[in-house]
Amino acid sequence: MELQAAGIVSGNVPGVVSITFTADFEGSGMTIKDIARECGVSVSTVSRVLNDHPDVSEPVRLRVLQTIEALGYIPNNSARTLVSSGSDNVGVVVRGTGNLFFSAVIKAVASALEEHGLTMVLRYLDTDADEVRAGAILEREKKLRGLIFLGGRFDYTPQELTRIGVPYVCCSYTNYFGTLNEKDYSSVSIDDRATAYRAVDELIRRGHRSIAALVPSRSDHSISELRYMGYRQALDDAGIPFDEGLLEECGGCFEMPESYEGMCRLLERRRDFTALFALSDTMAIAAVKAIRDRGLRVPEDISVIAIDGLTVSEYLTPTLTTMVQPAEEMGRECVRCLTDMLAGKPSRHRRFEPLLRAGASVVDL
Amino acid sequence: MELQAAGIVSGNVPGVVSITFTADFEGSGMTIKDIARECGVSVSTVSRVLNDHPDVSEPVRLRVLQTIEALGYIPNNSARTLVSSGSDNVGVVVRGTGNLFFSAVIKAVASALEEHGLTMVLRYLDTDADEVRAGAILEREKKLRGLIFLGGRFDYTPQELTRIGVPYVCCSYTNYFGTLNEKDYSSVSIDDRATAYRAVDELIRRGHRSIAALVPSRSDHSISELRYMGYRQALDDAGIPFDEGLLEECGGCFEMPESYEGMCRLLERRRDFTALFALSDTMAIAAVKAIRDRGLRVPEDISVIAIDGLTVSEYLTPTLTTMVQPAEEMGRECVRCLTDMLAGKPSRHRRFEPLLRAGASVVDL
Repeated sequence: MELQAAGIVSGNVPGVVSITFTADFEGSGMTIKDIARECGVSVSTVSRVLNDHPDVSEPVRLRVLQTIEALGYIPNNSARTLVSSGSDNVGVVVRGTGNLFFSAVIKAVASALEEHGLTMVLRYLDTDADEVRAGAILEREKKLRGLIFLGGRFDYTPQELTRIGVPYVCCSYTNYFGTLNEKDYSSVSIDDRATAYRAVDELIRRGHRSIAALVPSRSDHSISELRYMGYRQALDDAGIPFDEGLLEECGGCFEMPESYEGMCRLLERRRDFTALFALSDTMAIAAVKAIRDRGLRVPEDISVIAIDGLTVSEYLTPTLTTMVQPAEEMGRECVRCLTDMLAGKPSRHRRFEPLLRAGASVVDL
Repeated sequence: MELQAAGIVSGNVPGVVSITFTADFEGSGMTIKDIARECGVSVSTVSRVLNDHPDVSEPVRLRVLQTIEALGYIPNNSARTLVSSGSDNVGVVVRGTGNLFFSAVIKAVASALEEHGLTMVLRYLDTDADEVRAGAILEREKKLRGLIFLGGRFDYTPQELTRIGVPYVCCSYTNYFGTLNEKDYSSVSIDDRATAYRAVDELIRRGHRSIAALVPSRSDHSISELRYMGYRQALDDAGIPFDEGLLEECGGCFEMPESYEGMCRLLERRRDFTALFALSDTMAIAAVKAIRDRGLRVPEDISVIAIDGLTVSEYLTPTLTTMVQPAEEMGRECVRCLTDMLAGKPSRHRRFEPLLRAGASVVDL
């Protein structure tokens, strides 16, 4: 509270630290004033040190840090040290391990949690596992302070979520098909339907009208169903009738083997399409392989577009045209949402806007 | 030895604490008898304290623990576990986040730790960070019982590693250039030198004699230097003189952008080679891109071979020919090594044998 009132701390990344810190001081009965008084400096100077601002002299900086340590506070580890009895564990439950996009998010989440002195407890789930149950078990076993679900169903009920007793953030998905109260959780995602719409619309804009889709499922009440809906909507709005035979549901969670097999089935069935919308980059990579293995060319015979924006997609030939999700920012925002909830602030639902990264896998028809 | 002879401690997880402790005593020249004598209690009483048996009075328990500390024994996992309430945290420190190979290992490590009821505390480091320092900090902050280093330098000294007070496993590397006592740590890796030798030898066997190499560094006392040595040895054994101009050192930690730039520099300098040995799959993927962006073909103009065996490498066109490291098995073996050490069993150094996965990126000359 003090720090925020001083107007020094913005909502930006550097400000996160101090907010957590303030909360911890409150928890331990200390305030930033105690530190300032002990050091003989102003409150704003302590704030600057805590925020790692460059405009503090080295002697003052050292004095402040030493005082903090003397008072039993270890910088960078505020949460654990000051709230003495509490665990600093945050569970990160990952569903869909075949998705390389998650690797990038996990790295960002790991760094951001570390900056808050929180410990990431990572659990990978199989595709079919129930992430809520896994989260509830993890919460009990590891005395979690919070949970981040990386991938999951979009149709939770409040009843189901009573099993989770700590603040939680849905990362890369929302409760679109469910009945949760928005106030009861946070989410960080893209608008999956709109993003798929934009991807397919890009193909239409380039002259394609016979557009196939490769998705895990059209009715999983999850990310796949939403992106399928975006595909359908884009076709509808362009006056292109939906062609059942051009939709391939390959199951799984974006894994390359399943996607490759699915694309092979599609190509055995039909060859009369000029473009493919793949649900994710990994699925697109496998699809491109299947297309080429059958003697067709990308993009000359079939244009391919996807959603994710993996690094590796920039190093393929042709470079994959894809809607880039900002993995790093999304991971960091998840941690901000969670620490804000831990500090008693309201939950929030943050949508990121993917950007089209034009590669060479889409050509004008 | 004493404890084991006393038959008090089993090899199960609950027995972990005391057996490890015995090993530490041996290392420092102390025995459990010294502790018993110093405290004026029996050896079996010390054993009971170490095993956290309930049938020891609180004053005796404290006396034993204090004596252990007073004798200069730095509490490692055993004492720490006894003093604290029993953390089940295992630190996993990852160096080189650009390496997709690690993603597969981390998943296997996560599953295996979970099966043992251990909690994975994951920390990602920048390329230049000191993993030993990071591990030591993590150990203190998170009361770790053990550490797994995923990637690191090969030249540790015993002095350096005194900062680590818990059992640790080096994953994907060993202490080849260092002076650690083999008994003091475990490692799970491939023979990097031999694996690089086999990869380059495969190129030679296919008729290539002008073979370039793309590596982060030839002298980093790490994985890159060893694989470079394998490259040199294979050339030597085939009577092919080393050509300085065909070696490109691109720095970094297998990241694709650095590798792409490095390959571009190599291609600007030289075009008179028919094959490339890339240190890792991600480096090969970026190199193939650079080769094609300059109008050359893989494998018709330049054959490419690498080491790793990522899933994505099977879905490239052409499929990458690569030496496959068994990521899943290696991750699981790391956890086995660690839990065995925690159970008082000796450390071990396990080498896995990579298998050549023939793709389409290498052709006969």
